[in-house]
Parts: sequence; structure tokens; C-alpha cells
Amino acid sequence: TFIRGIQTVTLIPGDGIGPEISNAVMKIFEAAKAPIRWEERNVTAIRGPGGKWMIPPDAKESMDKNKIGLKGPLKTPIAAGHPSMNLLLRKTFDLYANVRPCVSIEGYQTPYTDVNLVTIRENTEGEYSGIEHVIVDGVVQSIKLITEQASKRIAEYAFEYARNNQRASVTAVHKANIMRMSDGLFLRKCREAAEKYKDVKFTEMYLDTVCLNMVQDPTQFDVLVMPNLYGDILSDLCAGLIGGLGVTPSGNIGANGVAIFESVHGTAPDIAGKDLANPTALLLSAVMMLRHMGLHGHAKKIESACFDTIRDRKVLTKDLGGNSKCSEFTEAICQRMKDMD
Amino acid sequence: TFIRGIQTVTLIPGDGIGPEISNAVMKIFEAAKAPIRWEERNVTAIRGPGGKWMIPPDAKESMDKNKIGLKGPLKTPIAAGHPSMNLLLRKTFDLYANVRPCVSIEGYQTPYTDVNLVTIRENTEGEYSGIEHVIVDGVVQSIKLITEQASKRIAEYAFEYARNNQRASVTAVHKANIMRMSDGLFLRKCREAAEKYKDVKFTEMYLDTVCLNMVQDPTQFDVLVMPNLYGDILSDLCAGLIGGLGVTPSGNIGANGVAIFESVHGTAPDIAGKDLANPTALLLSAVMMLRHMGLHGHAKKIESACFDTIRDRKVLTKDLGGNSKCSEFTEAICQRMKDMD
Ligand SMILES: CC(C)[C@H](C(=O)O)[C@@H](O)C(=O)O
Ligand SMILES: CC(C)[C@H](C(=O)O)[C@@H](O)C(=O)O
Repeated sequence: TFIRGIQTVTLIPGDGIGPEISNAVMKIFEAAKAPIRWEERNVTAIRGPGGKWMIPPDAKESMDKNKIGLKGPLKTPIAAGHPSMNLLLRKTFDLYANVRPCVSIEGYQTPYTDVNLVTIRENTEGEYSGIEHVIVDGVVQSIKLITEQASKRIAEYAFEYARNNQRASVTAVHKANIMRMSDGLFLRKCREAAEKYKDVKFTEMYLDTVCLNMVQDPTQFDVLVMPNLYGDILSDLCAGLIGGLGVTPSGNIGANGVAIFESVHGTAPDIAGKDLANPTALLLSAVMMLRHMGLHGHAKKIESACFDTIRDRKVLTKDLGGNSKCSEFTEAICQRMKDMD
Repeated sequence: TFIRGIQTVTLIPGDGIGPEISNAVMKIFEAAKAPIRWEERNVTAIRGPGGKWMIPPDAKESMDKNKIGLKGPLKTPIAAGHPSMNLLLRKTFDLYANVRPCVSIEGYQTPYTDVNLVTIRENTEGEYSGIEHVIVDGVVQSIKLITEQASKRIAEYAFEYARNNQRASVTAVHKANIMRMSDGLFLRKCREAAEKYKDVKFTEMYLDTVCLNMVQDPTQFDVLVMPNLYGDILSDLCAGLIGGLGVTPSGNIGANGVAIFESVHGTAPDIAGKDLANPTALLLSAVMMLRHMGLHGHAKKIESACFDTIRDRKVLTKDLGGNSKCSEFTEAICQRMKDMD
């Protein structure tokens, strides 16, 4: 994937506003002279041999080759039995860590300031096992599956992340008072990891207590690590604190450098194609991607241009409180980078 | 339980600050001339025949007779295998609905104003089934159990509650996109109940979306109904919005009028016995109890005296931002009621 220092990344523009915001990111990357070549792929669920749902072979091959992807929003399928494409992608490439930094954005006011935390969500098992049964008529069970291996892997990932990103503490989020065996196992693996990373402070907290404390004072949190469903909930809660999914980046990380970065907002069909969408979440996800690739200079440059544009409050999309089009916001970010050169 | 219009209620003072705040409530009830006689019972887990954990027989008998209880905080047992007393009480009396109104309190500032919602949590099954297995070494499963009967019961309870409390809408909170069978069943029962209560508006929303929307604008919510764990999380989150567990009441409702009202904060051993505790959560729970018993006049009187005292900001406990003792705060509330007469 290196051509004279240029790395190829699989781009999955996605549905609805996906193509517009992907375009915005490509324009900004070009203006930043980021050494990235894009390989565009569509992702829709197809049925493979035996009727198993899978992603299209050309998307799979592209990701297998490039290892790194950037993804816009994908329609949630309505037909029963059809899996969420987001989940299918996480599964296909064993992207076991979902990482969502939540940092207050100057110039975009919410009831909170100085939020600066990261949720790290186990992305492969737990309540998302997909194993469910009807026991007898009217009695259903869903299985929450927790394994030692996946718990150890995500716990160690969280501590590695904290160490590599100059973060002081990791909080394990759990309900081991209720799910003593499953969350108990998860928690034990976090404690064991904490033993290996003595330079990082470790605390543990019940999920309900985290939620309560989070809305009262989010600044007390740093890195949080948790099972799948709790991460789904907490990452959205935290996104809400800083302004919502329109400004919150996300990365799904696997082994050996494989990763897909994505905006986690919806496809916004009502404004699709109207040049009104806000590309910030996808752009900040792409910035996470650059850091993942070691391209820290380009990451910093794009991130600063984006944050400066928002702080300035002159050219903003509607959802950010402005009146500008997606293309104008994009242009403003590009212009700032040109001014930096 | 009626002696010349006086009803007997089982009082479980609880541990830590439990006795002090129970005393405060009794004093205030006396000043309000509430027609309540208290029957005090201690609750600690004991082992019954066959080693099964149970609550002490005299507490059980008292509740069986009186049907209605008021409960302070109980220590969470540390010994493995020992159940939470809170859960054991809910289970013993089949208290299937956990009701937590969250209403902004004037004079106690948080980042939010005008919160006015109620979480209604299924209190008997779901992730709290207690069924867990080791499948093979390092692989654990917890069972989330959802039944048609319990889902129907809580869904209909939520609509009844909305109707009887002049609330306009019920939102079902779920992850049926992930747990299609279990949350799917729960959601179906909510939809069916909605068909029967056409006068109440019905909406459905993913749990993660609720969390995000909740921290952005809680005023959009009214009554929310959900499976057990989601209720544990959301009720704490919502408590955080209005100032925490120290000011949030809670009721556990069963069939045929059986109910236990409780403060859901901890036992606060660090300040126990020092006359520093805030009795508000237990007092407001006792006010919920009065309404449950049809004593609306006494409920209103006590509630007003409590809220007026807080709004006034002259006599407040430390956690509420004041410098007064528990007994002084209690006295201030009593004085206000005397002034009303
Ligand atoms: C799209 C949906 C299946 C997904 C989830 O529940 O994990 C989403 O909410 C997320 O957080 O990425
Ligand atoms: C004490 C604990 C077992 C309980 C729960 O998890 O339900 C508590 O958090 C609650 O919300 O009442």
C-alpha cells in the first residue's frame, strides 16, 4: 500500500449524506497534501454461499490489501434477518476495539466544558453475540457472551492506548454486582492488565454510577473501558455532552494495524444531496486515521483548521448553528490550511 | 392496617445514614399530621431452609400485612454469593415496576432546567435473571430473560401511570436492533399496550439514542419504559440531571397495592451518625408513598414544604450547598408546615 510514500486507504462513502461528506474529506485531504490515495468501495450486504450475509468481495479485498478504511454512514437495513452493515464490517475484520475520543469543541456550546475523555468499547462479543432463543412460548433469552481472551485483549488495548496517548487513568465500567460471572470475568481481566501497566492509574465503577457522575462532572473521566453494550450507551451519552454524533469521531481497531474509522451519525436522508451536511465527524475520524498511520503532522494541520473554523463561527453548517453549505464549510477549512503554508 | 383511618407502614430504616434520615421523615410526617403509623423492621439477609437467602420473617410478615413499605439505604454485602438486599426485597414481593420521577428542583442548580420525566423500569427479569454459566474455561455467558408476561405487565403499567398522572407520552427504550428476539418481544408488548391506550402518545427509541438526546435536551422526554438494566442506567443518568441520588425518589410497585418506596443513594458510612445526611430522597420517596395511598393532601403539603425550603436556600445540608445539619433542615421543613396551618 505504499507508492512513493503514498498510502492507499479504502473509502466507503456510504449512503445518504455519505458521498457529500466523503467528498468534503477528500477535498480537505488534498488541500492538506496528505499522502493518501483513496480506493472507493460500496458496501451493501450480499448473500454468500450458504446464505450467509457478507460484504461485497471487492470491498473485502480492498480492505484486506489496504488494511485501513474510512467509512461514512450506512443505511440500517429494515428487512428482518438482515444484519447491520456496521456490525458486519466490525465482525468481518475482527475490529475488536471501538475507540471514541470525546473532547469539548471550542465555539460549539453545550452545557459542558473541558470534556476530554475516550471510551474504549469491546466490539466483538457481549450482548452483541446475536445468540437468542425462544425457551417456551413467551419466554426469550439473549446470551451475553464474555470471554477471557476478548476481555484481556480490550483491557490491554485500553492501557496501551492510555500510555501511548499520555492519558493518566483507565476506568473499567461494569455491572459485576449483577452479572457476577460475565462482568466479573471482564473486570478481572482489567485488574490483571492494570497490574502490568503500573504507570497508568486504574479505577473501576458501576455503569449506573458512571452515567450519573458523567452528567454531573464529565471532567473526572479519562479513558474508560467496557463491554460492548455499555460502550454503545456510554459513547453516545458522551457524544451528547460535546454536541452530538455530528462532531464525534470513531475508530474500530483490529490486530496488525487493521482499522476502519467512521462517523457514527445516520445517513440523514432528509438533507442528502442538498449540500447541507456537516462533514466534521467523518473529518475528525479521518484525522484519527492519520494518527493511526503515524501521519501526525497532517493530522494536526487538518484538525487545527477544522477546530479553528468552528471556533471562528463565521462559516458553519446549520447543525453547528450557522447558515453555510457543506461545500462552504469545507472550503473554509481548506483556505485555512492554505493560509498556514 | 386501618385503625380509625390510620394506616400502618413498614419502615426499614436501613444502614449507615438510614436511621437518621428515617427519623427525619418520621418527624416531618408527624408535623404534617399524616395518618401513618410506622412499624420498624430491620432487614439483613438470612439463610432459610435449604440455604436460600431470604429476608427476616418478621420483616416479611410486616410487609405481607401492611403491603406498603418505606426503606432507607441498605449496605451492599461484600461476601460472594450474598445477594443485594435491594434486589431480594424487589423479588420477595414481586415488585415489578420501579418508578423514578425526575423533576428539576428550583434552587438546586444543575446544567439542566425544567426536567420533568419518569423512568419506569421492569424490575424482575432481563439482565438481572442471575442465570450465568461457564461454557468452557474462559467463556462465560449471562442470560437476559425476557417474558411476554412481564413485558406486557410493565408496558401496561407505564400507560396506566401516564394516564393517571396526566402525562402525555410514553417512550419505549430498547435495543431491538441488536437483541431482536428479547428486546423485540419487549417492544412488541409496548406496541400492543399503546394500541389499548390511544389517549397516550407512544414513541420508541434506541437506548443509545435516548442517552444522547437525554443529555442534550431532557425536556423532550415524559414517561420512559424499559427492561431492567436499561432502567438501572437511565434512572441514574436522569437522577444526575437534577442533582443526584440525594434528591431523587423511587418506588417499587407490585400487584394489589403492594409497594416499597426507597431512597436509592448509598449508606454514606463516612457521615453516618453525624447529623449531616440529607433526608430529601427518602422524604420524596415517602411523598410518593402517600400519593400511592391516596393521601394527596398530605403529600402535597410535605412536598411543598420540602421544595420551598430548598428554594429558599437558607437551611440546607452540605450536599445541597448549605451548612445545616440534618436535624436543622428537618426542623425547617416542619416549621414551614406549621406556618401553613
Ligand atoms: C448501528 C448500530 C448497530 C450500532 C450499535 O448498536 O453498535 C451503533 O449504535 C453504534 O454505536 O455504532
Ligand atoms: C443496588 C443495586 C443492586 C441496584 C441495581 O443495580 O439495580 C441499584 O443500582 C439500583 O438502581 O437500585
